[in-house]
Amino acid sequence: MTYELYYWPGVQGRGEFVRLTLEDAGADYVDVARLPDGPHGGTQALLKMLEAPPHGHPSLAPPFLKAGRDLIGQTANILLYLAPKLGLAPRGEAARLWAHQLQLTLIDLMAEVHDTHHPIAGSLYYEDQRDEALRRSRYLRRERLPKYLGYFERTLADNASGRQRVLVGNAVSYADLSLFQVIEGLRYAFPRAQRRLEKRLPACVALHDRMAARPRLAAYLASDRRVPFNNDGIFRHYPELDA
Amino acid sequence: MTYELYYWPGVQGRGEFVRLTLEDAGADYVDVARLPDGPHGGTQALLKMLEAPPHGHPSLAPPFLKAGRDLIGQTANILLYLAPKLGLAPRGEAARLWAHQLQLTLIDLMAEVHDTHHPIAGSLYYEDQRDEALRRSRYLRRERLPKYLGYFERTLADNASGRQRVLVGNAVSYADLSLFQVIEGLRYAFPRAQRRLEKRLPACVALHDRMAARPRLAAYLASDRRVPFNNDGIFRHYPELDA
Repeated sequence: MTYELYYWPGVQGRGEFVRLTLEDAGADYVDVARLPDGPHGGTQALLKMLEAPPHGHPSLAPPFLKAGRDLIGQTANILLYLAPKLGLAPRGEAARLWAHQLQLTLIDLMAEVHDTHHPIAGSLYYEDQRDEALRRSRYLRRERLPKYLGYFERTLADNASGRQRVLVGNAVSYADLSLFQVIEGLRYAFPRAQRRLEKRLPACVALHDRMAARPRLAAYLASDRRVPFNNDGIFRHYPELDA
Repeated sequence: MTYELYYWPGVQGRGEFVRLTLEDAGADYVDVARLPDGPHGGTQALLKMLEAPPHGHPSLAPPFLKAGRDLIGQTANILLYLAPKLGLAPRGEAARLWAHQLQLTLIDLMAEVHDTHHPIAGSLYYEDQRDEALRRSRYLRRERLPKYLGYFERTLADNASGRQRVLVGNAVSYADLSLFQVIEGLRYAFPRAQRRLEKRLPACVALHDRMAARPRLAAYLASDRRVPFNNDGIFRHYPELDA
């Protein structure tokens, strides 16, 4: 079966968590909105599946995944469904819930990062909420990033069963790929703050580097399937927000 | 087995979604932080389990649920685990993922509601971010609430299998209890805006009323186990934010 991923074509955003899992597993998938425009590709195809999916279960927003007749939305939910099928989830209910909990926590962090540049409304330009953005990003850098990243650092350190030093159990899971992505994004968005923070995050940095070296992931990151970071996405680089 | 719920004692917050499911099912549980202070109760017991749980899997923040040796955090993840055991989840993988997707969408809405009164930082007082709160709440009322609530209204209307008019399948699930809670919260926080919105939400209002009439839920809502809404929680009533 060919999985169909539906996400905005010009950004990494939340969809990137799903792309990384599909790519690292070498799964057969199409990134629908990045195909040429037409009945089965492009943004029009995404909007059609968002508004009126043939078998129900519409999402409030992308990403969503079509797998045969199943349509699954909400990023963490997609991974909950997908990763076990691709060999990137831990075994057993307790470990699966734990990986899902970590993924949900990373998604919470993404929402906070988004709101550093859009603290008032997603429908307004950054420039129209820049004062508030300056104020909010200071708290993200000083309070929230240390809290979140310190949590993941401790989680890695506490996982004694992981000789490979992964987040859950003793094998790489989608949660590790997601933590890699968050570190990449923070390095792009807040390079100065992140450089300082990473001095106290050796386990996170080591995990990041091991993920980047995985052959399929490395090939993906070097390909044009990887949308570059840019200032339309969730992780945006405005130097004034990293000052 | 007695479930142990850990959540801040003075507010409904995200923990209320878990409380409603436990209460509606008549489950055996303790609300640990609301017990008298001591080694096994009160806020101290919550903080201890947050920082150093005996069998690992700490959460970044409450709520979390202890079930025997299992410790599960992230509200939607707790319900994913708990509701099937209490007869409040649909049967089958596709329906369970759909209910979880709806729950995650309600949690997203909660985060946006929280940020109407704390658009800059959770660590600052409301009064120190009131100007930004006025601006952000306007967008929530005009753009986000119609979008979210319209989505749930359509979801109810589209569920032809539900003679009972529930969100998923043909029996009440935790997602219905959660939608009830969000409507209650919005009525408390934004009574003027919500009154206008509800004119176009007949299915949501009908679901809300049916949930409120369920005997165990009604008994809970009338009891002192239900923390009243207040201005320390996520749904807060500041008249200026509803103007």
